[in-house]
Amino acid sequence: MFRPQIKVVDCTVRDGGLMNKWQFTDEFVRTVYTACNQAGIDYMEIGYLSSESAFSRDEMGPWKFCAEKDIQRVIGGEEKKVKLSAMADIGRIEFDDIPLKSESSLDMVRVACYVHQVDAAIALAHHCMDKGYEVTINLMAVSTVGLRDLEEALNDLSKCRVPIIYLVDSFGAFYSEDIDTLSKKYMEALPDKTIGIHCHNNQQLAFANTISAIINGVNYLDGSLYGIGRGAGNCPLELLVSFLKNPKFRVRPLIEVIESQIIPWTKRIDWGYYIPYMITGVLNQHPRSAMAHMESDRKEQITDFFNQVTTSTDLV
Amino acid sequence: MFRPQIKVVDCTVRDGGLMNKWQFTDEFVRTVYTACNQAGIDYMEIGYLSSESAFSRDEMGPWKFCAEKDIQRVIGGEEKKVKLSAMADIGRIEFDDIPLKSESSLDMVRVACYVHQVDAAIALAHHCMDKGYEVTINLMAVSTVGLRDLEEALNDLSKCRVPIIYLVDSFGAFYSEDIDTLSKKYMEALPDKTIGIHCHNNQQLAFANTISAIINGVNYLDGSLYGIGRGAGNCPLELLVSFLKNPKFRVRPLIEVIESQIIPWTKRIDWGYYIPYMITGVLNQHPRSAMAHMESDRKEQITDFFNQVTTSTDLV
Repeated sequence: MFRPQIKVVDCTVRDGGLMNKWQFTDEFVRTVYTACNQAGIDYMEIGYLSSESAFSRDEMGPWKFCAEKDIQRVIGGEEKKVKLSAMADIGRIEFDDIPLKSESSLDMVRVACYVHQVDAAIALAHHCMDKGYEVTINLMAVSTVGLRDLEEALNDLSKCRVPIIYLVDSFGAFYSEDIDTLSKKYMEALPDKTIGIHCHNNQQLAFANTISAIINGVNYLDGSLYGIGRGAGNCPLELLVSFLKNPKFRVRPLIEVIESQIIPWTKRIDWGYYIPYMITGVLNQHPRSAMAHMESDRKEQITDFFNQVTTSTDLV
Repeated sequence: MFRPQIKVVDCTVRDGGLMNKWQFTDEFVRTVYTACNQAGIDYMEIGYLSSESAFSRDEMGPWKFCAEKDIQRVIGGEEKKVKLSAMADIGRIEFDDIPLKSESSLDMVRVACYVHQVDAAIALAHHCMDKGYEVTINLMAVSTVGLRDLEEALNDLSKCRVPIIYLVDSFGAFYSEDIDTLSKKYMEALPDKTIGIHCHNNQQLAFANTISAIINGVNYLDGSLYGIGRGAGNCPLELLVSFLKNPKFRVRPLIEVIESQIIPWTKRIDWGYYIPYMITGVLNQHPRSAMAHMESDRKEQITDFFNQVTTSTDLV
């Protein structure tokens, strides 16, 4: 029934932190880590790898940087079953600021890039591989990429050494049929690589689209607890784990940590299905306008937002 | 691009009323009606047809009964473009209490039944057809029906005069692959009939499953504004309409009525994606235990609910 090659990646702290500048307490991160350990999750993405010179610690919490001393503080004293991942954005991390794998608790680095950054991403990814990490490249916002550019990027990626390439629906714009089409395209263009999927939930399709990807042979699956993440959030990890038939997974630890750590955050930040996020998803736009609206004191004035971002031809 | 046979049915008042005993103001129902008119929605299900002797008006709002005088009060003074529907439950309406179509503003009656009630449903449905209505039979909770019982029910339905038969995922238990399989089965067993779909959103799959049904040729599609409905709610109408490519549909009137009428209700009743509803969906159970938990003062104690409804073998 289950496919042993499937790996589940929890993005709670990394993607959720986009909503609160990674201002999670140590207790929050430690409890998520323990839950991932207990639930059989394969990877926990604990934050971003960023150069300390690129951002201020006065503004950003520790998981914008993933310094080893911060990681040690939250994972110490417990057997480490889940592997740890950090994301690296092109231009926000210097090669020299990345520690050797032998000096880090991180197991995997995921390099996020837009299509025009593929060459830079491959260079950074190779550097991380040479330092000893498992590495992925996550090609973002492909819903806005034309066919020729996409084919060129996939061709470049097919020639690199990076073994795992992610299909990312950054804007929550894809329907399952799009995921079918693109999963097949990625598998054909990258026959020697493993494909991953990261979805956003603007149209309540993150879980459904992840299932579509699974059916098409995609094996690295991103989710987050209760879907916490930027804007409409991600594929809910508890739904994904309850769907997968691999007996190594357990749902109860995820329910426990949602109760103790995530539900309190629902009262402080607004991720999930809200009409402004739905509208940018339908329009295939970056969610920044919706996030600004949701952070304003006019967040329930959704008709104003509709009128602001639509034209007479795209959505009526 | 679009399929002209597709009809969209708004269930906001009927299914949403399951959460507040149909205690909607006239202004609420009138505004939803106006929005459906403006948005090009094909049918608005305004409530249930019930005998006045079966329920008390002290407890239930007018849309539990759909008396003509109540309907007239909310639809008067505006050109009626959207057709009106009411649902009839077996055993809660006497034949004699159903008015002739010529004396009613209702256009359609949808007869809801469980599999063991199919004969009674056919009798009631034929009675409604003979009184002049468009009629559907909505076979509920098929996720709990065994193959032999389902085939027998579909065989009975294939021989009746009712032209439209609904596939209903009452518990929000189905994945899109289930909808694929069942849509094909309904289409094969009922080649002369139109098939409809009504989904619940316990696993955030109501919209995705509705799309799966569309792909398989299902033509009557249920949704509700912002997904309002029992428990986890329904397929969000605004998502469905933004997906369909028929230029007769408009999204903006739906956004306006969500702002003015639905968002205020989000502060009073808890429909949508909550963990108790997710758990009953995964377990393929009626949501009543989850609804009771959500109405208690312990609604955020979701681990207790998990422990209460699961066993050591069904979800761990």
